[in-house]
Amino acid sequence: MSFAAAAEQLVWAGRRFDQRGWVLGTSGNFSVVVEREPLRLAITPSATFKGQLRADEILEMDERGLVATGARPSAEALLHVEIVRARGAGAVLHTHSIWSTLLSEAHGAGGGLTIDGYEMLKGLEGVRTHDHREWLPIVENDQDIPRLSGVVRAMLERYPDAHGFLIRRHGLYTWGADLLQAVRHVEILEFLLEIVGRSSKEGAEPWRS
Amino acid sequence: MSFAAAAEQLVWAGRRFDQRGWVLGTSGNFSVVVEREPLRLAITPSATFKGQLRADEILEMDERGLVATGARPSAEALLHVEIVRARGAGAVLHTHSIWSTLLSEAHGAGGGLTIDGYEMLKGLEGVRTHDHREWLPIVENDQDIPRLSGVVRAMLERYPDAHGFLIRRHGLYTWGADLLQAVRHVEILEFLLEIVGRSSKEGAEPWRS
Amino acid sequence: MSFAAAAEQLVWAGRRFDQRGWVLGTSGNFSVVVEREPLRLAITPSATFKGQLRADEILEMDERGLVATGARPSAEALLHVEIVRARGAGAVLHTHSIWSTLLSEAHGAGGGLTIDGYEMLKGLEGVRTHDHREWLPIVENDQDIPRLSGVVRAMLERYPDAHGFLIRRHGLYTWGADLLQAVRHVEILEFLLEIVGRSSKEGAEPWRS
Amino acid sequence: MSFAAAAEQLVWAGRRFDQRGWVLGTSGNFSVVVEREPLRLAITPSATFKGQLRADEILEMDERGLVATGARPSAEALLHVEIVRARGAGAVLHTHSIWSTLLSEAHGAGGGLTIDGYEMLKGLEGVRTHDHREWLPIVENDQDIPRLSGVVRAMLERYPDAHGFLIRRHGLYTWGADLLQAVRHVEILEFLLEIVGRSSKEGAEPWRS
Repeated sequence: MSFAAAAEQLVWAGRRFDQRGWVLGTSGNFSVVVEREPLRLAITPSATFKGQLRADEILEMDERGLVATGARPSAEALLHVEIVRARGAGAVLHTHSIWSTLLSEAHGAGGGLTIDGYEMLKGLEGVRTHDHREWLPIVENDQDIPRLSGVVRAMLERYPDAHGFLIRRHGLYTWGADLLQAVRHVEILEFLLEIVGRSSKEGAEPWRS
Repeated sequence: MSFAAAAEQLVWAGRRFDQRGWVLGTSGNFSVVVEREPLRLAITPSATFKGQLRADEILEMDERGLVATGARPSAEALLHVEIVRARGAGAVLHTHSIWSTLLSEAHGAGGGLTIDGYEMLKGLEGVRTHDHREWLPIVENDQDIPRLSGVVRAMLERYPDAHGFLIRRHGLYTWGADLLQAVRHVEILEFLLEIVGRSSKEGAEPWRS
Repeated sequence: MSFAAAAEQLVWAGRRFDQRGWVLGTSGNFSVVVEREPLRLAITPSATFKGQLRADEILEMDERGLVATGARPSAEALLHVEIVRARGAGAVLHTHSIWSTLLSEAHGAGGGLTIDGYEMLKGLEGVRTHDHREWLPIVENDQDIPRLSGVVRAMLERYPDAHGFLIRRHGLYTWGADLLQAVRHVEILEFLLEIVGRSSKEGAEPWRS
Repeated sequence: MSFAAAAEQLVWAGRRFDQRGWVLGTSGNFSVVVEREPLRLAITPSATFKGQLRADEILEMDERGLVATGARPSAEALLHVEIVRARGAGAVLHTHSIWSTLLSEAHGAGGGLTIDGYEMLKGLEGVRTHDHREWLPIVENDQDIPRLSGVVRAMLERYPDAHGFLIRRHGLYTWGADLLQAVRHVEILEFLLEIVGRSSKEGAEPWRS
């Protein structure tokens, strides 16, 4: 995929998520793979409102998180590289919604949460029935990104079927073969997290846990 | 109604529902009858974001769910045919909202829920007073669509006055004489489902049931 | 105010309220006084999506609720005339939001609810301090509009300072000297109703009352 | 920064906040510093819908809250001057959201609330880790603005690290080095207030306190 096309997709995704309130402040970061060998990602810059991105603001990054122009990509860029490597993903998306944040804490101690029985699970790649149990792992937050990358790598290896994960009191990471699939995954998981949040005791009355 | 006009209506409906968050991911499917004998429906394609539809993406489908061009309509296309047959509907709409999903589960065991006393019920065709008791049936989800069609057919026969129904942990189906009426029905029912969800013990504290 | 200008204002108000989800389905009705003697109102037509109004759809109505062209104005048009008369209003707005509906029921038995202490109350005409107690009357719903008009008239007389009222399990009516003030009143009251709904036992756990 | 550029920024901020429902009615007020010595602020006028501002409506104000043209700036203009002085801010923003209002009351008696452990805290200037405890002071509302200014001044002195504060049953004040940073602060704090509101007993069941 050309860099220009990838940049346009990232701008579109940012607008969509901003409308939902999932990238408030300058939160969130998105990437699209433009080349695999060597690895080149189109990635959103740091400290920008993701709902107001312009295609010319998108950065091109290599697997060490370095950008030719010297601009600073998202602080979590290495996590994107980790996920691309572990899952062969074509796009990685990170959003900060109310419900993903609430549930990452409500279920944090258990290391994850199960979502099962919902038709919307079929929006996750490879899932063909509502009778599916999706385990959404939760890892602890950590400002040491290389260290967090290691934890994420181990978790993705341990749970090869997981379509996303939460970072505690932080947000959601998900991915897809391309950006459209990744956006679909964000929307499906955000929807399901609100469902679980409103229908489970942990989600609706977390102070009681 | 011409196919082109039907396609434009479906695009409009998709945008409206997408703004409300009722067709997240690539969920939802909508159809409009363009011809009755033989039956021809304009229907949304599978795996597309319903808020971003283009008129040229809309498919023309017959009563067996087959499309001349070979493209794949929504997996649930046969349910649309069922509803058109049972109700003489001119349009069928299927949405996945938070509240329809929550209540489909909260009231699932009872096979349906009653909504009564609200002025908004008058937005349902044939209802002239708020002193109306609307029974919204709930059927179990099933990946075998032909089998589910049979269950839906029997339920529609059993409840000839129902304006819509829920599929458990899945979403809402409703219809109308034309697309505008069907859109009105979706909005009225989604509104009422949120009202019931927030004001009933089953809806607001489902983990206690 | 010219009819054309009034029509443009009504179209604008409809769009604004539709974005908030306060006029779902074809609910809601709005009017602007274009002439006082004889009374002429620009009013929204029945059975239209209030977020999609066109200026040429707006009707001109007299004090008996009759329209020269024969088109049917909103069923509740007589309530608009009542409020214009009782309050000397220049515009009357009726919306159907989740929280106004929930609270109209939660506090219905008491005939009204008090909202006090909030800075936002200063958005109501004549209120200069947050230390204000606003009584929002609630009347029972009634499909007999002339009869309901009489009840509304008596209620407006009994509570000359009320800036709006709720109809039980129905929605909110408010008004203003002109449409902008009326829109401001809708937004202030809808905001405050959500505040009360989320912070009072009656609003948040109505099934316990 | 030129006055024209400041005015455009304020118009943009107003639209963004209006979409979120944080400036309903004619609530909210925003300012940008255009000159420091003497102090000149570009500020929103009173009694306008902040989501519909035009650049030509923005007022230029001095440190006494006076405007050359005679138009009336926001009633709370002196609070803006206070904050600019105390924090050296380049922009000051005041919003009225549901959650800021609810929490200002739920935690009002304690004079403030603590928000800690969330990644989103890093959207606040100077905060580099989620392991940060942000104290958000709450002051009592007061219609005597000069008196309230004094209280705000003392509170800002007492809590030099606070990035914002709440006025009880009123709303949120925050600021930034420039408008973009201030907008980021509003969004981060509004997000975190909803998180706290939904996950703490005080926020979710305030009637029990």
